[in-house]
Amino acid sequence: MNDAREVVVLRYGHRPGRDDRMTTHVGLTARALGADRVIFPDNAGQSAETVRDITDRFGGPFEVELRDDQKALVRNFDGVVVHLTMYGERVQDVEADVREAVGLEDATVGGSPPSPRDLLVVVGGEKVPWALYERADFNVGVTNQPHSEVAGLAVFLDRLFAGAELDREWADADRRVVPEATGKTVIDADGEGVEGDGDAEGDEGDGDAEGDEGDGDAEGDEGAE
Amino acid sequence: MNDAREVVVLRYGHRPGRDDRMTTHVGLTARALGADRVIFPDNAGQSAETVRDITDRFGGPFEVELRDDQKALVRNFDGVVVHLTMYGERVQDVEADVREAVGLEDATVGGSPPSPRDLLVVVGGEKVPWALYERADFNVGVTNQPHSEVAGLAVFLDRLFAGAELDREWADADRRVVPEATGKTVIDADGEGVEGDGDAEGDEGDGDAEGDEGDGDAEGDEGAE
Repeated sequence: MNDAREVVVLRYGHRPGRDDRMTTHVGLTARALGADRVIFPDNAGQSAETVRDITDRFGGPFEVELRDDQKALVRNFDGVVVHLTMYGERVQDVEADVREAVGLEDATVGGSPPSPRDLLVVVGGEKVPWALYERADFNVGVTNQPHSEVAGLAVFLDRLFAGAELDREWADADRRVVPEATGKTVIDADGEGVEGDGDAEGDEGDGDAEGDEGDGDAEGDEGAE
Repeated sequence: MNDAREVVVLRYGHRPGRDDRMTTHVGLTARALGADRVIFPDNAGQSAETVRDITDRFGGPFEVELRDDQKALVRNFDGVVVHLTMYGERVQDVEADVREAVGLEDATVGGSPPSPRDLLVVVGGEKVPWALYERADFNVGVTNQPHSEVAGLAVFLDRLFAGAELDREWADADRRVVPEATGKTVIDADGEGVEGDGDAEGDEGDGDAEGDEGDGDAEGDEGAE
């Protein structure tokens, strides 16, 4: 969200078929909650397509990248690396240190403004290698309970940005949702046209946060998933 | 987390096979981030089993309920109903009202302490009926972007409890994770025995927040998922 600093989410590991939906949700969560880019393993083409499609429709900027060199990427990252893991330090104990490391904390009185540094947030799928724990500047747990990498990423980003990501603007959107106390209002991004106002039908899904591409599922048809 | 008030998460809708993993993640997220109970549709037995297993191992209290009467449940709920949807009012605009409605806001000076009320948080899977939008006391969007019901639930709970859920205690656990800056330390809940300290192997998974039951996936084998 900030031109001076890039926040990149890396989905480490992907099992095609099995992980398509979860990897997609990691990407959509990264986009919605303020990251600039998500990197998927290069066998996650299906997920990449879905996230790019959502970005085309609902706006950006948000990049989706497919890479086959995750290990090198982590090893060589020029910035701060946070690895989200249930084994890590408690997010409430380290979040201020993380914000300070990337230059998101306010300058102290009389001190110089903090320099922005890029941040790589690594979210594991299946087993991640020990080297990731070691390379990470911070191993962070949103609770030390087993739950969901999507939930961990979401809470981490919301705390990293201190809620500022909820107010971001979206560029080059075809359409946008207008918040409603009761209702579903989707308008063309240029303000013309209204779809699905007060109607349980609607092109953008129905309680399913990913939107609706015909079968209630923004990821499209993932076969046996 | 509070004896006087129950926070219940309802997973509205479940497609067996297709939704097993996501429904499981909804349940695990509800547990980890402070809810007292999750209700799944009665065709989500696989997910229920996984969440109960995690609760047996890592502690509670946390109830998993299978019900076939979701509509009636919502309609008759004696308390506050929040429906999480991308179409809803922005979480940052309504979270104080929600906290006040359930009695989580501090009493005003000179006023009486707020009465606790139960809260039902409804998370949709596939299309949810219009009646849910109408019955909900609050339709709430964590952003008005399409992303993940798991992410929406996580951020909502973290804000509902203002982070207090991260400090909760767990009762009757077999084991617990000890937070580490670099490492994976799992101990028996009674303090005896250490597993997986500094070792990339470990019974509780590896970067996969759900833990590891042999194949890197806490939900067990979900077949074609």
